[in-house]
Amino acid sequence: MTTEIIPGYSFGTADVAASPVTEEDVALLKATLLWSDDDERYLRMAGQVLADQVDDVLELWYGYVGSHPHLVHYFSDPEGEPIGAYLERVRARFAQWVRDVCLRPYDGAWRDYQHEIALRHTRVKKNQTDGVDSVPEIPLRYIVAFIFPITATMRSFLAAKGHAPDEVDGMHTAWFKAVVLHVCLWCQPYAAEMW
Amino acid sequence: MTTEIIPGYSFGTADVAASPVTEEDVALLKATLLWSDDDERYLRMAGQVLADQVDDVLELWYGYVGSHPHLVHYFSDPEGEPIGAYLERVRARFAQWVRDVCLRPYDGAWRDYQHEIALRHTRVKKNQTDGVDSVPEIPLRYIVAFIFPITATMRSFLAAKGHAPDEVDGMHTAWFKAVVLHVCLWCQPYAAEMW
Repeated sequence: MTTEIIPGYSFGTADVAASPVTEEDVALLKATLLWSDDDERYLRMAGQVLADQVDDVLELWYGYVGSHPHLVHYFSDPEGEPIGAYLERVRARFAQWVRDVCLRPYDGAWRDYQHEIALRHTRVKKNQTDGVDSVPEIPLRYIVAFIFPITATMRSFLAAKGHAPDEVDGMHTAWFKAVVLHVCLWCQPYAAEMW
Repeated sequence: MTTEIIPGYSFGTADVAASPVTEEDVALLKATLLWSDDDERYLRMAGQVLADQVDDVLELWYGYVGSHPHLVHYFSDPEGEPIGAYLERVRARFAQWVRDVCLRPYDGAWRDYQHEIALRHTRVKKNQTDGVDSVPEIPLRYIVAFIFPITATMRSFLAAKGHAPDEVDGMHTAWFKAVVLHVCLWCQPYAAEMW
């Protein structure tokens, strides 16, 4: 995926939590999302289209977070000051997440790492990876609400490489489905047996 | 909204739960969704466009649920047989929900009724409104996953009345934001203090 070292990006290592989500859970969620072979193909295409744009995507998303004090809050210290190093470390992992969504197979290692990300939003693991003293938990409602900006803002990037409108639509639909699937997995620690 | 009696549709009555979600919670979620005056206007437009199509929307959604055994499951009795009367009562309320999303103000009565809907997905209130013996709870992951089909399938209905492409885009974006906002509220009982 990348040869760069990304601090805290522990995909596939023994440090990652074991996901309680099963292969069958994912298969049924994919069915719920009307997941098809076309979506697989379009995600790979999106991975190519986004390859040299991921930093620009993150720049846009960070501008959005940065302009909303109630969101920057989750990257801030007890005095309410944003923690620059924390924001930058998360940014690098978030960029890698975009690549992973498009290019990784959704297998057991992927389920485990999504669960690791899920836990890093909650009191179980937030702040630990980056050794920071920040807010202990991101509320579930913002995890779910992010589906909109993370989906809507992606369209212009997917359209930036001259693909036909039906290909841009296909990539955007696959991205939308993939974001919802990831958020479904990220919800697990918040709901436990009601997940 | 409608003069027809919809069984179990208790919007604005004393039977409805009191929502723990505050006006400020909604304001911050709207900010997270980049909610604008245009979205208000486009939702009203969507309400007009969908007025005579709501039954067709529900027909499509029920075809989708009906073709997925793991989803029909949540409308089934202990023997696994779908409960026809339950499906039909929920269908009528679901249709009214589409109208409400487009045309109701998102005020205290709306927050309370969304919380009532939220509880009706959980062990607290599922099955009671319709007096049925069905599965006790809909897992959170399907509440979140529904954001995709409920959003994606709406576009063709919004485009069916000859509006300009930018108006269809505007209505569809507003619908997407509104669906995510409602699902955020519906997540509350699953996450409690982590909401």
